[in-house]
Amino acid sequence: MEKHHESSVSNLLGGVWCFLRKCLFYVLSFGPIPNHIAFIMDGNRRYAKRSLKEDSGHRVGFTALIYVLQYCFEMGVKYVTVYAFSIDNFKRQPDEVQSVMDLMKEKIDELLKEESIVNKYGVRINFWGNLYLLSEPVRLAAEKAMAITARNMGPVFSVCVAYTSTNEIMHAVEESCIERREKIRKGYGNGYKDELVGADKMDSVISVTDLEQHLYTSDCPAPDIVIRTSGETRLSNFLLWQTTFSHLQNPAPLWPEFSFRHLVWAIIEYQRVYPYLEQRRGSSKKED
Amino acid sequence: MEKHHESSVSNLLGGVWCFLRKCLFYVLSFGPIPNHIAFIMDGNRRYAKRSLKEDSGHRVGFTALIYVLQYCFEMGVKYVTVYAFSIDNFKRQPDEVQSVMDLMKEKIDELLKEESIVNKYGVRINFWGNLYLLSEPVRLAAEKAMAITARNMGPVFSVCVAYTSTNEIMHAVEESCIERREKIRKGYGNGYKDELVGADKMDSVISVTDLEQHLYTSDCPAPDIVIRTSGETRLSNFLLWQTTFSHLQNPAPLWPEFSFRHLVWAIIEYQRVYPYLEQRRGSSKKED
Repeated sequence: MEKHHESSVSNLLGGVWCFLRKCLFYVLSFGPIPNHIAFIMDGNRRYAKRSLKEDSGHRVGFTALIYVLQYCFEMGVKYVTVYAFSIDNFKRQPDEVQSVMDLMKEKIDELLKEESIVNKYGVRINFWGNLYLLSEPVRLAAEKAMAITARNMGPVFSVCVAYTSTNEIMHAVEESCIERREKIRKGYGNGYKDELVGADKMDSVISVTDLEQHLYTSDCPAPDIVIRTSGETRLSNFLLWQTTFSHLQNPAPLWPEFSFRHLVWAIIEYQRVYPYLEQRRGSSKKED
Repeated sequence: MEKHHESSVSNLLGGVWCFLRKCLFYVLSFGPIPNHIAFIMDGNRRYAKRSLKEDSGHRVGFTALIYVLQYCFEMGVKYVTVYAFSIDNFKRQPDEVQSVMDLMKEKIDELLKEESIVNKYGVRINFWGNLYLLSEPVRLAAEKAMAITARNMGPVFSVCVAYTSTNEIMHAVEESCIERREKIRKGYGNGYKDELVGADKMDSVISVTDLEQHLYTSDCPAPDIVIRTSGETRLSNFLLWQTTFSHLQNPAPLWPEFSFRHLVWAIIEYQRVYPYLEQRRGSSKKED
């Protein structure tokens, strides 16, 4: 009876909190709501050192992520991207890397469960990075998650793993070169007498557009806001190409401490500078 | 007599100020002094709107730059890079663009005079960007400045004009492709029977190192600090590739208001986070 009572109170409080949240989002929606927010989830290890066992920082960080995702989707944010694991992170202690891999596998599986946030909002999941650097179970889980959610029409949740921006750009350069080589081949097939003349002609055709088509983010708008937690003011090789006109924010809390009020504050900050950002973007678009 | 007296007082005050400055730099030098500082000189136009005629913001901005350069060189900073004019800026009103071009020409000529800061410190000047987008007099002046100072052994002052980072990366991709094409040609000359086999082999050789060798910044270390004035928190397509481990700072004053104390504060901020930055850089170097 006691337990039932507790559960009712908890449900009631949950309902009230959800209602208040939606009221606040309604008020916020009178201003511009960002289309795409990217997070550098910094501070998991420092949080763990400060308060818990060494390896549970990432676990608490994942819980924070799920809450943040929910708030973003409730608010109408269409794209959320997170920097989960950089290529540099593989140089950490092998047991730490292994425990992050294990956690990643577990959490990807959880995301695909019926009651998960992915199914609640019809989320499409992307994993961006050199997935072949991941342990095989994680890579397979990531590929499965992408395949299963590929046709979902809801918000898009992109996870950068085994990712750096320079690696992404190099990957795009490589793909562009391959594409061009194919064009040269076809040109050859179509009767070029001298392949090197053909190569000369085709060599000039790698353009910004070609390269951008081969970035992982090609079907995704540039982030409106990039939030790096724990007060750090570096981009750490995250979406460098895509964040030219993004508003960079560096709130002080560590990632596991990043909560509802910090997110709301980030949106208010964004709305404050929005006219200026739009002006910048506008003048950039004129160029195209 | 009155005038001579005024001038002596002014000289004395200047001498005292210079002495105090050097004392402060001496104290600062017990901590790490950045090797390379990059500035996004934002706020000239806003400053002009607020206080002066529309077109004189850039002129005051240039004076601020000369002071900042002097302080940096006195402090022992080896590389100073500024974002003077982006490719996007060409879309401003034609008369504004023209007046900036005129000012640029005038100031480049001033930099080469005997009593200038360039000759005082033996500065090497770089102009980075697509210089063919500049008006011809400015381009010629820039090329002359680079040629004249090319053998100077003092600090390096790099000016990004007609520059965007994406343009720089695309330029490097293009140069890498050309280099590779030359290699293919040589391979052909050396007896490849089938050029396409040659092309296949060579197509895989564009690496991060190749690309970095063709960036404008190839002979320059990455910035330790990037300072964007006027409180804006965007990189606006400036040295994106190079600023992965740079400390980004966004002081509130507009560029013409950026003064000695702001620079000192920036160095103190950098020294505060230095151990953490070094740790990050260290873990990145392991990768190479």
